[in-house]
Amino acid sequence: MNSDQAIETPAVVIDLAVAKKNIKRLQKHCDQHNIALRPHIKTHKLPSMAKLQIAAGAVGITCQKIGEAEIMADAGIQDILISYNILGASKLARLANLARRCNLSVVADNAHVIEGLARAFSQEDKPLKVLIECDTGAGRCGVQSTDEVVDLAQKIHTSKGLTLGGLMTYPPMGKSQQVESWLKEAKAALLDNDLPCPKVSSGGTPNMWKSQEVPTADEHRSGTYIYNDRSLINAGLCGRDDCALSVRVTIVSTPTADRAIIDAGSKILTSDLLGMEGFGLIKEAPDAQIASLSEEHGIIDLSESEWQPKVGDLIHIIPNHACVVTNMVDHVYLAENGKIEKTPVLARGRVT
Amino acid sequence: MNSDQAIETPAVVIDLAVAKKNIKRLQKHCDQHNIALRPHIKTHKLPSMAKLQIAAGAVGITCQKIGEAEIMADAGIQDILISYNILGASKLARLANLARRCNLSVVADNAHVIEGLARAFSQEDKPLKVLIECDTGAGRCGVQSTDEVVDLAQKIHTSKGLTLGGLMTYPPMGKSQQVESWLKEAKAALLDNDLPCPKVSSGGTPNMWKSQEVPTADEHRSGTYIYNDRSLINAGLCGRDDCALSVRVTIVSTPTADRAIIDAGSKILTSDLLGMEGFGLIKEAPDAQIASLSEEHGIIDLSESEWQPKVGDLIHIIPNHACVVTNMVDHVYLAENGKIEKTPVLARGRVT
Repeated sequence: MNSDQAIETPAVVIDLAVAKKNIKRLQKHCDQHNIALRPHIKTHKLPSMAKLQIAAGAVGITCQKIGEAEIMADAGIQDILISYNILGASKLARLANLARRCNLSVVADNAHVIEGLARAFSQEDKPLKVLIECDTGAGRCGVQSTDEVVDLAQKIHTSKGLTLGGLMTYPPMGKSQQVESWLKEAKAALLDNDLPCPKVSSGGTPNMWKSQEVPTADEHRSGTYIYNDRSLINAGLCGRDDCALSVRVTIVSTPTADRAIIDAGSKILTSDLLGMEGFGLIKEAPDAQIASLSEEHGIIDLSESEWQPKVGDLIHIIPNHACVVTNMVDHVYLAENGKIEKTPVLARGRVT
Repeated sequence: MNSDQAIETPAVVIDLAVAKKNIKRLQKHCDQHNIALRPHIKTHKLPSMAKLQIAAGAVGITCQKIGEAEIMADAGIQDILISYNILGASKLARLANLARRCNLSVVADNAHVIEGLARAFSQEDKPLKVLIECDTGAGRCGVQSTDEVVDLAQKIHTSKGLTLGGLMTYPPMGKSQQVESWLKEAKAALLDNDLPCPKVSSGGTPNMWKSQEVPTADEHRSGTYIYNDRSLINAGLCGRDDCALSVRVTIVSTPTADRAIIDAGSKILTSDLLGMEGFGLIKEAPDAQIASLSEEHGIIDLSESEWQPKVGDLIHIIPNHACVVTNMVDHVYLAENGKIEKTPVLARGRVT
């Protein structure tokens, strides 16, 4: 345990009480609508947080990288979806190893990926669940048509070592009707072709309170909801007090009356703007703009603010995007009941 | 040593021959103009690279964080400038410890910082060298006037435990005359007041080939020159073949004819645009645009390109900004003479 004042800045601090409240709230929403919640661990990258999410009722977790899933399985997490096309002999060998010690599923949106998975799992006792990723309008990965869904589903269904896990999408924001119609048609096509569709998984924190508007999806994946951030405040999806993560920084210089410099730049706050102006919300002075960042400096524009920070002052910033911030630091500080504890971000920087 | 094909992607690969050529070239330029070169380690964050720079003739290194300097001192680097205002009891204690085992200097641009340094070093045998940071037009940290320079210099000069190290600036780009006039006047004012000015340090990779245009500055700090990047290509400061760092990625999906997805997003390439469009230069297809990133996906727009990538293809990206990329990964791969070796980025993520 650290004394609060002894923490060197910049430091990423998590208010545990707020995080727990956020976990409960979305779980309750999903329970009410009979939707399974499978949190995305990209936001916290901490097994301890994943365990809180599962204890609250989540069916399992979502990862993007095998390395993240390995860390979570090491910590005893049992049900893991890697929502990514896995390719390459080395990664496929790791995937097969991982599948022996947890209930693993992955996604695929093309035949090349399915063939690789089939090769890697042909000798395994337990088949690998593969969901077909569908592009329901977000324009990232995913098959483009129901015909492709059926083609790939048949390929999975007839591959020794693989089993069809259903459908998965990373949906566009605010287009529930379009997503529902896409998934409904695709699921119907699977069933019409005597193919199973045990699960339909959708996601996205911006969509979380409307997950029930896609009734075909019986699972929702959400990451940012556990911490929230400035982008979600600006989208009207949470309030400032719902933000569990903040970056504690020190004013290191006040070279002019309208400029103050903090000891956090893009190496902590990142350059993510997510369509907003400024690089974060200063809790102590919301009208002061973090106008620009270099790697280790943040430049605050005080010209529109009455605030007069002094060198040495500690302030707290709600970042634009929480998920990318936790990836920048080896440790975060968990604060609860007046105590604060340094903890390693175990799944940080797992790029493969 | 790894077999080239066995490397899992995304992977940050450094062409050592190119890095060595870049080191030599800037060193030669500085030698010709009688300017001391003090490379900024933020670009590579590797003691092995710092040693190559020193072996080539650099007088020492520049760091921004005590944690970076500690790693470099651990590796035997002797002459270190931390070009940052250091504040807070815990950091000052680390600084005093560090100063006992290397030739350390720091900067300050305000009285509060100088008072903290003086307190921390008042009982030390060896005084700490403190340079005054001057804002010569870049609008970040730094004193605003010659009068302030003289005031702070007197404060340092009369503080037990501190010694005046001279002047330091992070200059605006392309304004040599303005920077020279600022520094010349400030140095003259110090000498007029019987204060020493043993060194004047300027920097910036974009200014590197014109460092001689600020003759008052007898030291130049540059970071990016060792690897170069897309921003420097676009500024006309290097060619594509001068870029030592690239990110090796795999095409993981080709959902439509005009879109391909790579397994590198902002978690590797970062969101840094540095005024450019697109998130990096694809060496194999410079006309294809990396149009957007999410954390683990990069979306390539093929609509203006003849290139037809296939799932599983390996490609290489020159990032917009090399320095921030090395900070994203625990390891980089050093390639030379057909061999490739994985090495930890020891000074990565040192935020304090």
